[in-house]
Amino acid sequence: MTGEADDPLLLLLSGPNLNLLGQRQPEVYGRTTLAEHVEAATDEAAACGYRVEHVQSSHEGDLVDAVHRARGRAAAIVINPGALTHYGWSLHDALAAFEGPIVELHLSHPAGRDKWRQVSVVAPVATGSITGFGGHGYRLAVRAVASVLGGGER
Amino acid sequence: MTGEADDPLLLLLSGPNLNLLGQRQPEVYGRTTLAEHVEAATDEAAACGYRVEHVQSSHEGDLVDAVHRARGRAAAIVINPGALTHYGWSLHDALAAFEGPIVELHLSHPAGRDKWRQVSVVAPVATGSITGFGGHGYRLAVRAVASVLGGGER
Amino acid sequence: MTGEADDPLLLLLSGPNLNLLGQRQPEVYGRTTLAEHVEAATDEAAACGYRVEHVQSSHEGDLVDAVHRARGRAAAIVINPGALTHYGWSLHDALAAFEGPIVELHLSHPAGRDKWRQVSVVAPVATGSITGFGGHGYRLAVRAVASVLGGGER
Amino acid sequence: MTGEADDPLLLLLSGPNLNLLGQRQPEVYGRTTLAEHVEAATDEAAACGYRVEHVQSSHEGDLVDAVHRARGRAAAIVINPGALTHYGWSLHDALAAFEGPIVELHLSHPAGRDKWRQVSVVAPVATGSITGFGGHGYRLAVRAVASVLGGGER
Amino acid sequence: MTGEADDPLLLLLSGPNLNLLGQRQPEVYGRTTLAEHVEAATDEAAACGYRVEHVQSSHEGDLVDAVHRARGRAAAIVINPGALTHYGWSLHDALAAFEGPIVELHLSHPAGRDKWRQVSVVAPVATGSITGFGGHGYRLAVRAVASVLGGGER
Amino acid sequence: MTGEADDPLLLLLSGPNLNLLGQRQPEVYGRTTLAEHVEAATDEAAACGYRVEHVQSSHEGDLVDAVHRARGRAAAIVINPGALTHYGWSLHDALAAFEGPIVELHLSHPAGRDKWRQVSVVAPVATGSITGFGGHGYRLAVRAVASVLGGGER
Amino acid sequence: MTGEADDPLLLLLSGPNLNLLGQRQPEVYGRTTLAEHVEAATDEAAACGYRVEHVQSSHEGDLVDAVHRARGRAAAIVINPGALTHYGWSLHDALAAFEGPIVELHLSHPAGRDKWRQVSVVAPVATGSITGFGGHGYRLAVRAVASVLGGGER
Amino acid sequence: MTGEADDPLLLLLSGPNLNLLGQRQPEVYGRTTLAEHVEAATDEAAACGYRVEHVQSSHEGDLVDAVHRARGRAAAIVINPGALTHYGWSLHDALAAFEGPIVELHLSHPAGRDKWRQVSVVAPVATGSITGFGGHGYRLAVRAVASVLGGGER
Amino acid sequence: MTGEADDPLLLLLSGPNLNLLGQRQPEVYGRTTLAEHVEAATDEAAACGYRVEHVQSSHEGDLVDAVHRARGRAAAIVINPGALTHYGWSLHDALAAFEGPIVELHLSHPAGRDKWRQVSVVAPVATGSITGFGGHGYRLAVRAVASVLGGGER
Amino acid sequence: MTGEADDPLLLLLSGPNLNLLGQRQPEVYGRTTLAEHVEAATDEAAACGYRVEHVQSSHEGDLVDAVHRARGRAAAIVINPGALTHYGWSLHDALAAFEGPIVELHLSHPAGRDKWRQVSVVAPVATGSITGFGGHGYRLAVRAVASVLGGGER
Amino acid sequence: MTGEADDPLLLLLSGPNLNLLGQRQPEVYGRTTLAEHVEAATDEAAACGYRVEHVQSSHEGDLVDAVHRARGRAAAIVINPGALTHYGWSLHDALAAFEGPIVELHLSHPAGRDKWRQVSVVAPVATGSITGFGGHGYRLAVRAVASVLGGGER
Amino acid sequence: MTGEADDPLLLLLSGPNLNLLGQRQPEVYGRTTLAEHVEAATDEAAACGYRVEHVQSSHEGDLVDAVHRARGRAAAIVINPGALTHYGWSLHDALAAFEGPIVELHLSHPAGRDKWRQVSVVAPVATGSITGFGGHGYRLAVRAVASVLGGGER
Repeated sequence: MTGEADDPLLLLLSGPNLNLLGQRQPEVYGRTTLAEHVEAATDEAAACGYRVEHVQSSHEGDLVDAVHRARGRAAAIVINPGALTHYGWSLHDALAAFEGPIVELHLSHPAGRDKWRQVSVVAPVATGSITGFGGHGYRLAVRAVASVLGGGER
Repeated sequence: MTGEADDPLLLLLSGPNLNLLGQRQPEVYGRTTLAEHVEAATDEAAACGYRVEHVQSSHEGDLVDAVHRARGRAAAIVINPGALTHYGWSLHDALAAFEGPIVELHLSHPAGRDKWRQVSVVAPVATGSITGFGGHGYRLAVRAVASVLGGGER
Repeated sequence: MTGEADDPLLLLLSGPNLNLLGQRQPEVYGRTTLAEHVEAATDEAAACGYRVEHVQSSHEGDLVDAVHRARGRAAAIVINPGALTHYGWSLHDALAAFEGPIVELHLSHPAGRDKWRQVSVVAPVATGSITGFGGHGYRLAVRAVASVLGGGER
Repeated sequence: MTGEADDPLLLLLSGPNLNLLGQRQPEVYGRTTLAEHVEAATDEAAACGYRVEHVQSSHEGDLVDAVHRARGRAAAIVINPGALTHYGWSLHDALAAFEGPIVELHLSHPAGRDKWRQVSVVAPVATGSITGFGGHGYRLAVRAVASVLGGGER
Repeated sequence: MTGEADDPLLLLLSGPNLNLLGQRQPEVYGRTTLAEHVEAATDEAAACGYRVEHVQSSHEGDLVDAVHRARGRAAAIVINPGALTHYGWSLHDALAAFEGPIVELHLSHPAGRDKWRQVSVVAPVATGSITGFGGHGYRLAVRAVASVLGGGER
Repeated sequence: MTGEADDPLLLLLSGPNLNLLGQRQPEVYGRTTLAEHVEAATDEAAACGYRVEHVQSSHEGDLVDAVHRARGRAAAIVINPGALTHYGWSLHDALAAFEGPIVELHLSHPAGRDKWRQVSVVAPVATGSITGFGGHGYRLAVRAVASVLGGGER
Repeated sequence: MTGEADDPLLLLLSGPNLNLLGQRQPEVYGRTTLAEHVEAATDEAAACGYRVEHVQSSHEGDLVDAVHRARGRAAAIVINPGALTHYGWSLHDALAAFEGPIVELHLSHPAGRDKWRQVSVVAPVATGSITGFGGHGYRLAVRAVASVLGGGER
Repeated sequence: MTGEADDPLLLLLSGPNLNLLGQRQPEVYGRTTLAEHVEAATDEAAACGYRVEHVQSSHEGDLVDAVHRARGRAAAIVINPGALTHYGWSLHDALAAFEGPIVELHLSHPAGRDKWRQVSVVAPVATGSITGFGGHGYRLAVRAVASVLGGGER
Repeated sequence: MTGEADDPLLLLLSGPNLNLLGQRQPEVYGRTTLAEHVEAATDEAAACGYRVEHVQSSHEGDLVDAVHRARGRAAAIVINPGALTHYGWSLHDALAAFEGPIVELHLSHPAGRDKWRQVSVVAPVATGSITGFGGHGYRLAVRAVASVLGGGER
Repeated sequence: MTGEADDPLLLLLSGPNLNLLGQRQPEVYGRTTLAEHVEAATDEAAACGYRVEHVQSSHEGDLVDAVHRARGRAAAIVINPGALTHYGWSLHDALAAFEGPIVELHLSHPAGRDKWRQVSVVAPVATGSITGFGGHGYRLAVRAVASVLGGGER
Repeated sequence: MTGEADDPLLLLLSGPNLNLLGQRQPEVYGRTTLAEHVEAATDEAAACGYRVEHVQSSHEGDLVDAVHRARGRAAAIVINPGALTHYGWSLHDALAAFEGPIVELHLSHPAGRDKWRQVSVVAPVATGSITGFGGHGYRLAVRAVASVLGGGER
Repeated sequence: MTGEADDPLLLLLSGPNLNLLGQRQPEVYGRTTLAEHVEAATDEAAACGYRVEHVQSSHEGDLVDAVHRARGRAAAIVINPGALTHYGWSLHDALAAFEGPIVELHLSHPAGRDKWRQVSVVAPVATGSITGFGGHGYRLAVRAVASVLGGGER
């Protein structure tokens, strides 16, 4: 099930190494592949009336450019920045220039990991974050976007 | 809509000052009251097949005792620890002794607030966290619990 | 001399261990008891046209609740938080939700004491502070409240 | 074997979550219950000519009040403050006002655990400390009290 | 109303930029001029049986010299050191050599301002401090001096 | 009373300057000599069925060598490392290679002394520590060893 | 007005997100577009006898490559590194291998902004910097280059 | 060439030791004297329609007073604070009370020098800064003032 | 001499600016070019029975992708990350997902250089490191790989 | 005994509050007055063939000016900077421009005093320092100057 | 195979506890004994035309003396300082006075171990370091020495 | 010239590597040998009525033992601890147990050297220190001892 062509757009961004999901450290990140996660997110989005565009790259610059292209075109961004979470200040600045809600998504829960994984330079420009629920996070993030865009008092 | 009496139990904990929700700093925390948030969480839980028990207190000791009582009785805990987030190590230890999933919930997004609000002593013992989505967070947290308990690879 | 029943209310809060005043470390805190300090504050308040309500507790939660009850009922708060000065973030949040002026009062002068006694988590939500004047501080704090409430440019 | 009614009193204090001893993290804290530890301490105390009064609470305020009540009534205090070890400044202040020897007792050895478990705000007001000997610590602590109170050069 | 010529002397010191009071950042420091504040302090002092001498300078050296001249001549010092609060170690040493009580006075409440405004090198040699009550602070400071010099237990 | 020749061995180690015990800073360390402390420990050990071997040196290398020689020969080590407590990483590594329990013993209570005395590089490889009980610590340390070696749940 | 083909070359580098100039946070960065800024710089350069080559990219690697290509070809570099200012150590190393003068240019004044914006990893390899003059900075930077290259004692 | 008497005024301030320019560390600061730098600035100012008033002093208080006198009289300030850059908080406060643009000027580039030279307490109240261009900085600073005052979007 | 086509593969990675080897700071990095270093490594590898594939890029993303492609195809990685050593967390994550041994190679010895050059984010995922031996490091690194892969107890 | 008029000059500088020597904290600084110390230094200098010029001031600017005047006129400087030791960067810069040897002199031994008294901003530009010998330091400092100027290998 | 008597000398130094190699923490340091490692190094050295002298001690002073004796006698030093790596400043100073190349050797890779193991006070005086290759490191270190001494551009 | 046999004793201690004086880093420490420095100190001491005993060792333990032996036998200690200055806490404790004056002597001036050379663990137990005067320091230190022992107000 995919979203309709004229549904509002939700940009889903995946940072470096997320293409290895399912293969790398399965005890931390699970065995589901990125494609499967994207599919789950797309399903959930369709159910909420959104369509999904997905970009994954090992290059911070590609993600910056994707955010720029989303300006005025996408209603919201869900981003799992991978390791860029910790030093991607250019990505931070790009996101700061996006007008819609931004959900920061992490599969693992940084609080239980290395110190450096607990600092997010993306967080200050995100609307909110969802961490620690593994692949379930993709559906929850889409739903969070839908809730925030759907209005009602927060 | 409330959960059935023999549905598994979800303990919802609210820390100090959350009883003022809807009155205190509405520009940060919104105008919805705690009762209304609990009702929303209860509805969502019922839809997922859980019933909710709610405890709010200004005393860290009361929350510690509530967590103790939940051991072996509740399937999961959703907790918005209020200011105890930042220094409630006793609450941390109590939660560490709970076997089920624990969701840390914050209405506001600490990354955009004071430095001291960005340190959570509860996070290391939580399964995951949901922050920044205002009152929508209550429904998302319940759904996160249901996802995690519902199984499937994370 | 006590304030009249319809004089505006001034809530006087005393944190943990202040009930030992006069007995504990008299070389630092003097030999006057808490009851005597409260009486002095009450006299000064009456002279300024205020009545005093006093709450002392070893429980942070009790002080939080007292602040909640004072909302809309008291004109100002004078608080000597005892050791909660240094970690009582819940008390901080409760005071942040009080509309009137708040005076932070310390009998000793933290600058000449242990490092940790020099950090106050209450200060950011106080209107002002009076420290180092021993028991004289109670009368000065009441007078400060009266000055601030009495208007005139600050 | 319990102490005689007119033996000098030894106050044994247990902080939050210690009521879970024997159930929580047995690989760290062992399988002996708090009641059994108290019984061992009581036996050892009786052998040394002391009787034991035990207070456990999840509320810092309760422990503060117990210390206040012990002033002029108990000869010494043995305290395992639980997580309050790390932020219980009110408890610190209460203990500072107690005249007799104070033994800080920990079952585990903080040096081999989390950083935050290695900071004790109680230590500066304790006479000495015993850590890392598991349940044996209760008997050692009682004996330490007896040695210190028994006089002889330290 | 001014103090009598043989009333004991109270030295009032104002650091750099305080001559701009009433003009500079009125939203922080109010619209009252320094002359008006000095007059208020003088009135309050006269009512308490003290006369006031006032020195303001942009030069730390002038304030140091004024403190030296006050030795053996003035009963107390009330000082608003301006920005010297944060680095005036020479002023600190001069004040340390003054025998009477010293009140540190600030119109604004540093706790709610820049980090560097929260460090006072003067505080360790002050008897006490009064901050955050705007111009009311001048009268409170004089009264604090009178209380401390008037004796009675602190 | 000394231990029997075939009693298990307990190595007692004393670091630099402990040979001055009884002479150096008696207000901190008491007037009992090291020989007397060793005798007390030996008595207590004999009562528990252990014999004691004592090594004191100003050279960290001597203590390292003593620990090496104890491997496979001694049942436990009680060590008062003196100032090596704070920088003796070679001693740390030697102790880490010892299989039996290790008790770190200090006569004074570091929590009430200089900052640098509060960091122990030996603690991470010790089973437990006993501090602050003056000379009584020697008997307590021996008893702690006996308890731990004697088995029973810790 | 553009520089002559055989005028010495001035490389103008713009880091990530600078392509959004005029659109992103106009209250901080103004409403002038990057193209207009480059035109101003080119005009000023022409007036000084230089021609300008401009490279903008979201990829640090592109800027590194541009610096490499400038070696031996350009007389000077003016660089506004965007967010790479704060973590672009590869860019730092590339610039360190450039022989001519390097001007670091920022439109806003970091001193009045977030802490992390105040650390520049580019500064140590720059000849000088010009910050806080908005779009005027482009002309000033070109003029600074001309002054430095024009010789005369600095 | 000097500015006309009714040209708007530009105050040029030089901190301690700048009178030694040309003599002190010529390898860092060049061989041009302060008088020559002031002359260059005056020429550039005249060309831009401003006249220059110059104050140099070893006394922070003199600079503070000069800034006070400039209020309402000068259109802008160019300041090279010398070593006061790093601790002149009184100067900071004085400049904060000046309404026009303020340019912080340094001949050398602090990024390549001692750590303490990299902290400027003046920067937070400056409009912008120019560093590292040696004596050329004087003309650039005047031009920066003219640009900012001349309007046009920054 | 090059490795045989069916020899196991050794991936040699060179980070940003290493293409300038031989030109940039020859007093630190020598005058040998990268091509010559790669040739030396290839020779040494061939002698040990390995063939070499070399990738150099100014883009962290390119190196991440190269590591991904090496998974399951190369036996080991030798990496000189250039400045990415200090902030390339994405590269860190990519290397963490590689199963074979990883040798971190630096020509210069960071201990004698800038502070920031002494922090390596790559080190935690490397098997070992070789630094400070200039171009000799390439042969040593290859030999280290051969030793580790060749087995025998380490 | 005073030096001959054509003996080389030794400038003796005394910072703020040193005029109080003999009166202020005699338990730290002794009961000898500054005049007596200067006399002792002058005697010792005369014996070594130097004459002494002494400047004391509460103003850092005065000391800076005195150092400037000493350039080319005095052979050496002995300076007790008082509290300027800890923040007098302008004095630091002035001394850095003096060509002869500089001896930093302190009567007390900072190592045994407050933390902030242990940081000297003057030390990096001094030839050597003499601290902790009370008034004897004046003669030792003069002798140190004579030794250094007298030549012979250091 | 051992080196010829007139081969140049290579001093191999082993710090405290390395005599336990093969016995202590074999999962970290392997099961090969120090004698076997020395033999491997000697073989490799002989192959390269060097003879080896080995010194191991628990005393830092012995290693210092060995370095002194090597001055003018040995061509290079390979040192595994054991725990002295982290605090052996005397060893640092001794090595600083040695003229030939110095290789710092560690069997384990500190980056994956305790924080304090990641600071080396020996590194600043070493030519280079080899870490993480277990016992293979001995041969690699000898080869590194031979490469560096053998000349050719580094 | 040597002291008389019954002159009071002055113990001169030299730490690790000082035996290399005259050979190691002559640009920092000069070309005079330790024997020559000791001779100069002995001469100066004899002139003041003291005899000198000198101990140099690479072993901290030897210096500790020398200090122990000096208790009750020597009138004062002059110590140049070499690198032990920075970590010799055992030496610190030994010196703390010596009753007479202790002079800490350094030939170079640490303020102008590495950070770690600026921390002295010996300083807190020294009476005073003399640094930076090269070999002249030996005579100055002896004279300082003579002054302090000679009495008169310090």
